Amino acid sequence: MNVVVLAAGQGKRMYSKLPKVLHGLAGKPLLGHVLDTARQLNPQQLVVVYGHGGDQVQARFQNATDLAWAHQAQQLGTGHALAQALPQLKSGTTLMLYGDVPLTRLDTLRQLLAASEGGKLGILTDLLDDATGYGRIVRDATGAVQAIVEQKDCTPEQAAIREMNTGILALPTERLAGWLAELKNDNAQGEYYATDLIALAVRDGVAVATVQPANHWEAEGINNKLQLAALERIHQGEVARALLTAGVGLADPARIDVRGTLSHGQDVLIDVNCVFEGHVALGNDVRIGANCVLKDVRIADGAVIHPFSHLEGAEIGSGALIGPYARLRPGAQLAENVHIGNFVEVKQSTIASGSKVNHLSYIGDTTMGAGVNIGAGTITANYDGVNKFRTVIEDGVRIGSNNVLVAPVTIGTEATTGAGSVIGKNAPAGKLTVARARQVTIEGWQRPVKIQK
Amino acid sequence: MNVVVLAAGQGKRMYSKLPKVLHGLAGKPLLGHVLDTARQLNPQQLVVVYGHGGDQVQARFQNATDLAWAHQAQQLGTGHALAQALPQLKSGTTLMLYGDVPLTRLDTLRQLLAASEGGKLGILTDLLDDATGYGRIVRDATGAVQAIVEQKDCTPEQAAIREMNTGILALPTERLAGWLAELKNDNAQGEYYATDLIALAVRDGVAVATVQPANHWEAEGINNKLQLAALERIHQGEVARALLTAGVGLADPARIDVRGTLSHGQDVLIDVNCVFEGHVALGNDVRIGANCVLKDVRIADGAVIHPFSHLEGAEIGSGALIGPYARLRPGAQLAENVHIGNFVEVKQSTIASGSKVNHLSYIGDTTMGAGVNIGAGTITANYDGVNKFRTVIEDGVRIGSNNVLVAPVTIGTEATTGAGSVIGKNAPAGKLTVARARQVTIEGWQRPVKIQK
Amino acid sequence: MNVVVLAAGQGKRMYSKLPKVLHGLAGKPLLGHVLDTARQLNPQQLVVVYGHGGDQVQARFQNATDLAWAHQAQQLGTGHALAQALPQLKSGTTLMLYGDVPLTRLDTLRQLLAASEGGKLGILTDLLDDATGYGRIVRDATGAVQAIVEQKDCTPEQAAIREMNTGILALPTERLAGWLAELKNDNAQGEYYATDLIALAVRDGVAVATVQPANHWEAEGINNKLQLAALERIHQGEVARALLTAGVGLADPARIDVRGTLSHGQDVLIDVNCVFEGHVALGNDVRIGANCVLKDVRIADGAVIHPFSHLEGAEIGSGALIGPYARLRPGAQLAENVHIGNFVEVKQSTIASGSKVNHLSYIGDTTMGAGVNIGAGTITANYDGVNKFRTVIEDGVRIGSNNVLVAPVTIGTEATTGAGSVIGKNAPAGKLTVARARQVTIEGWQRPVKIQK
Repeated sequence: MNVVVLAAGQGKRMYSKLPKVLHGLAGKPLLGHVLDTARQLNPQQLVVVYGHGGDQVQARFQNATDLAWAHQAQQLGTGHALAQALPQLKSGTTLMLYGDVPLTRLDTLRQLLAASEGGKLGILTDLLDDATGYGRIVRDATGAVQAIVEQKDCTPEQAAIREMNTGILALPTERLAGWLAELKNDNAQGEYYATDLIALAVRDGVAVATVQPANHWEAEGINNKLQLAALERIHQGEVARALLTAGVGLADPARIDVRGTLSHGQDVLIDVNCVFEGHVALGNDVRIGANCVLKDVRIADGAVIHPFSHLEGAEIGSGALIGPYARLRPGAQLAENVHIGNFVEVKQSTIASGSKVNHLSYIGDTTMGAGVNIGAGTITANYDGVNKFRTVIEDGVRIGSNNVLVAPVTIGTEATTGAGSVIGKNAPAGKLTVARARQVTIEGWQRPVKIQK
Repeated sequence: MNVVVLAAGQGKRMYSKLPKVLHGLAGKPLLGHVLDTARQLNPQQLVVVYGHGGDQVQARFQNATDLAWAHQAQQLGTGHALAQALPQLKSGTTLMLYGDVPLTRLDTLRQLLAASEGGKLGILTDLLDDATGYGRIVRDATGAVQAIVEQKDCTPEQAAIREMNTGILALPTERLAGWLAELKNDNAQGEYYATDLIALAVRDGVAVATVQPANHWEAEGINNKLQLAALERIHQGEVARALLTAGVGLADPARIDVRGTLSHGQDVLIDVNCVFEGHVALGNDVRIGANCVLKDVRIADGAVIHPFSHLEGAEIGSGALIGPYARLRPGAQLAENVHIGNFVEVKQSTIASGSKVNHLSYIGDTTMGAGVNIGAGTITANYDGVNKFRTVIEDGVRIGSNNVLVAPVTIGTEATTGAGSVIGKNAPAGKLTVARARQVTIEGWQRPVKIQK
Repeated sequence: MNVVVLAAGQGKRMYSKLPKVLHGLAGKPLLGHVLDTARQLNPQQLVVVYGHGGDQVQARFQNATDLAWAHQAQQLGTGHALAQALPQLKSGTTLMLYGDVPLTRLDTLRQLLAASEGGKLGILTDLLDDATGYGRIVRDATGAVQAIVEQKDCTPEQAAIREMNTGILALPTERLAGWLAELKNDNAQGEYYATDLIALAVRDGVAVATVQPANHWEAEGINNKLQLAALERIHQGEVARALLTAGVGLADPARIDVRGTLSHGQDVLIDVNCVFEGHVALGNDVRIGANCVLKDVRIADGAVIHPFSHLEGAEIGSGALIGPYARLRPGAQLAENVHIGNFVEVKQSTIASGSKVNHLSYIGDTTMGAGVNIGAGTITANYDGVNKFRTVIEDGVRIGSNNVLVAPVTIGTEATTGAGSVIGKNAPAGKLTVARARQVTIEGWQRPVKIQK
C-alpha cells in the first residue's frame, strides 16, 4: 500500500514564516507526527506532497530517506494534490493523510485499511453532535454510502446528518488514474476535490466502507495556533494517561509536558510542572521534583532530582541527589551517590562515586574522582579565552571554598586546598596547598561616609 | 453620555483590609478594569461612587484626573448610590456600571448604548439555564419588557423565566431626577434599588430595550475570592485566546498569566507557566522558556530566554541568550548577542554587543563594552556600604574567574585579569593584571580529625 | 462504635513495590487519610485489616498507638476481612471503611452513623448517571431497601437503577458474628462479600438506612495511578476552594498543591504554581511569588517571598524579603526585615533584624547580628571535612565581596572586611580587616592564542 501525505499548505492563519506542517506539537513538526504514524503501516511508498515553504519542509526531513516527494506548484485542491503523487504510487491501496492532522492513531488507520480491503474505498468518518460546515455522509436505505454532500448543498434532512467526512481516505490505487482525470473544478474555489472520488466510486459500483476514530481529535486539523495549542494539550493528556496507566506517579496529569520519549522503571514519581524533551530515561524509584526541565537525560535507580533543576545531556548515577537549582549541561556524567547542590553548574565533566559539589560552583571540563568534596563557590577555570583545558581532581580531594582551579591542573589524591586559593599548578597528593594572602587589620581606617551630591 | 461606577461596597466576604473594588485581577484593581473599559466610551462625565474604604480607593486612583467622585456615606442601595452621582451628570444617557463587575466587554456596552438611543432605557440582561435568585425580566405578549420581578415575588411562571437582570443599565439622564425621587425603600433591606427605575420607565411610557452579553462572565460580579479567582482564570483564558489567535505559540493556554500588556512580533513561542507583568514587548522569533517571570521588559528579535529566568525593567538585544536562572533587574540594558548565563544577576548596567557573563556573577552599576568575557564567580563591588560607584569594563576585556572589581574602577580595552583577583585600581589596556597570592604546599600538615563530643 | 478499615489489598495495577494503601495523596498515605477521618469519629476501636505488604503498612503507622491490627492472611473478600476484625470489636455500631477510599468526608460518615442509630444497618449509597458495574440498591414500593443486586444478576429494570452501593457500611456489631458465619463464597471469585450482609439484615427484619455523600468522589476508590491522580486533583481543588473561601488570594486554584497544613492570616496572596508541604504558617499580608516550594516554614506578617524560592524548615520574620531563587534550609531563622536575595543558601543560621545577604552566598552554621551586610559571593566555610564549626558575625558588620569566613571565627561589631578576603582569625570590632594580594600588572604578557590541533 501507499501513503500520500498532503503537506503543501501555507497556513496563513498561523501568521508565521514556517509552513504550517513544520509547526511543532510536542516538540516534533506536525508532519513528523503523520509520517511517524504512517511508517508503522509499512507502506511501499510514502509520498509527501509539498508546496508552500517546500524548501523548508524538505530541509527539515532531509535525513528521511524513505520519503518520496511530489511537488504541487499551485494549490488546486486535494484531488489535484493527490494527482501529483500518482506517478509514484504502487498498486494496492493508497491512504491519503494530511500533514496538518497530526494525531490520528495507528489503530484507527489500520481499521480503515482493513475495512477497505478488496478494492473498496474507505472513508474515515466521524459522528459529531453538530456537523455544520462539514461534508455529510449520505447513506441509502441499506446503509450504503451514496454520496458526500457539502454544507451548501445540503437539504434540511441532510443538514441534520451527524456523520461527517474527515477527508482521510483509503483508495483503490488502480482506479485513481481514471478517477482523478474525471475530477472537475467547477466549484466556488475552482479546486479539484478528492471528496468527489466517492461519487465516482459509487457510480462505478465500487463498495464504500467507513470507519470511525475512537476520539474526535484524531481527525482534527490545525489551521491556527488555537487549534495547535488545543491538540498539544490533548496529546499531552494522552501521554500523561499512558504514563499513569503504566504506573508512573504524576502529581498533576495536566501539568507535565513530554516532547520526545520518556521511559521509566517502577515507582517513579514526577511532581508538578516538569518538562521532558528528547530522550529521557528514568530508572526505578526515581523522583523528579516540581518545576524541573530535563532533556536527553538518563537517570539511574533511586536518584532524586530536587525542584528547579535543569538537566540536559547528562547521565546521573543511582542514588544521586541533584538540586534544587542544579544545572547539568551536556557531557555531565555523574556516578552513583554523587551530590550536586544548589546553584551548581556542571558541563563536560565526569564525577565519580560519592563526590559532592553542593553549593554555588562551576565544574567544567573536569575529571573528578570518588569521594571528593568541592567547597562552596569553587570555579574550574577551564577557558583561557581561546582554548579549553581539563581539570583533574583525584579521589578523596577536598577543595576549599571559593577556589579557582586554573586548568590544565591536577589535584592529587587526598589533597586539600585552602579557602580562597587560586590553584594554577598541580597540587600534590595528600598535602594541603594554599594560595592565600595574609590577614591584616588596618589601624585607623574609617568607614566610608555618604558622599553629598 | 455619562458613566457612573458604583464602588462603595465593602466586600465583607473578601476578608480583607482592602475595599472590594481594589482587589486585583490580572494585576489591576477591579475598579480599574471597569474604568478602563468606560473610558473607551469617551463619556463626558465618569463618576465613581465611593464609600467603604473611600480613602484607599481615591488614593489608588489619585492620578486619574478624568474621574469625578461622589460620596455615598451610607450604603442605602444602588438607587441611592446613583442619586449621589446625579448632581454631576450631564445630559444624554447615563450608563450605570459596578466596580466589582470587571469583565464587561466594550462591545457589549456599545451595543447597550446603541439600543438605548433616543431616550430609551437599556438593560443588560442575560439568559441563564437557571436564573434562581436573580430578578427576572417579565415581558408582555409583544415582547416588551414590563417589569423586573425579584425572586421572592415570582409566580411559578415567572420563576421559570431564564432572562435575568444584570444590573447594568443605560438610563435617560433627564428622567433620573424625577425617578430617583420616587424610589421607595419599603423592602426587606430598606434600600433604594435602581432596578425599580424600570417600573417607572414602563409607567411613563419610556421604551425599554435589552441587550445580552456574548458571555455570561461579562456580567458576573465578585463577592469573594472564589469568584475573584474564577474571573481571573476566565480573563487569562481570554488573553491566551487572543495571543493564540494573533499567532503567538503557547505551550499551554491554561498556564500563562498576563498582568498588563504583552505585545509581540511574529513566531514568538512561550513555554509553560510564564508570568508577564507590566509592559512586556517581544520581538519576532523570541522564545520564552518554561517558568519565566517577566516584568516591564523589552526583548528584541530572535532573543532566547531560557527557563527559570526572572527579568524586570530590562532591555534585551536581538539574538541575546539569557538564562537559565538569569536575574535581570531594573536598568539592565543588554545589546545584541549578549549572553547572560546561569545564576547571574545584572542591575543598572549596560552591556554592549556580544559580551558574555555566563556563570555565577553579579554585575551592578557597570558599563561593559563589547566582546567582553566575564569569568565565573565575578562580582562587581559597587557599594561601600553607603555609596554606589560604577565599574567600567572596556571592549574586549577578559575578566578571570572569581574576581572582585571594586568600584570605582576601569578595566582598559583588551585587558585581562587573573583568576581570583581583587581589582581595586584601574587595570591598563591590553595587559594582564593580577592580584594573587603565591601557591604553596604545606609540608607535614594533617587533615582534621573528627572531634569527639 | 468501632471502625474497621480494610487495608489488605495489593493493588496490582499500581505496579509498585508499595502496598496500595501506602501510596500518597497530598503527601499522606491513602490509609492515613481514612484513619485521620475515622479518628474524628472517636471510635472505641479502630481496627486496620492488613495483608499484602502488611509489614510495610505496620511500619508506616508504627507510631499510631490507637490502632488495633487484624491480619487477613488470604484475601477472601470483604466479609472475610471484616471477620478477621470481629474479635476486637466492641458493642455498638461498626463502621466499615476502605484504605483505598481516601476522601470520604467526616460529615458524610456522621450522617451515615446517625441514620443507622438504633441498631439499623446503614449503607452509603450514591446516585450515578450510569451505575453499570456496581451493585444496585433495589427498594420495595415503600422505598425500603430490599437487596443489593450485582451487575450480572440485574434484570433490565434493575440495571436501570441509578443508586449504587459504595461498600461503606454501618453495621450493628452484635449481629455480626451470626451474619458473618452465614456468608457464602459460592460466587465466581470464591469470596465472602460484606454486601451479602444486607440480605441477611432484610431477612432478619433489621431496618436498612441509606445516606448519600455530597460528592461522588467521596466514595471513589483507587486501583491505579490514573485514579490516584484524579483524586489528588479533586482533593487539591477542595483545598484551594477552602483557602479561597477563607479569604486567601490564589492566582490559580488549579495550580496550588498543599501536602499538609497551610494556616494563614488575612490578605495573603499566593501566586501560581506553589507547593506547600508539611506545616506551613503564613501571617497577615504575606505574599508568595510564583513557583515557590515551601516545607515546614513559618512566615510572619508582611514578608514577601519572591519567585523560585525553596524554603524548608525555616522561620521568616515580619517584613522580610526573600528571593527570588532563595534557598532556606532547616534551621534558618530570620528576624524581621531580613533580606535574602538571589542564589543565596542559608542553613542552621540565625540572622538578626535588618541584615542583608543579597547575592550568591552560602551562610551555614552562622550566628549573624542585626544590621549586617554580606557582600556578594561570600561563603561561610563551616566544614573542615569532618567537623562543623560556627561563624559569628556581630551587629553592624560589613563583609566584602567574595569573602570566605573560615569557622570557627568571629567578626566583631561594626567590623568591615575587604573584598576577596579569607578570614580565618577573628576580626576585631570596628576595624577593617583584609587578606588581599597586591595588584600588579604584568608587562610583556601576551594573550593566549588558539592551539592548533
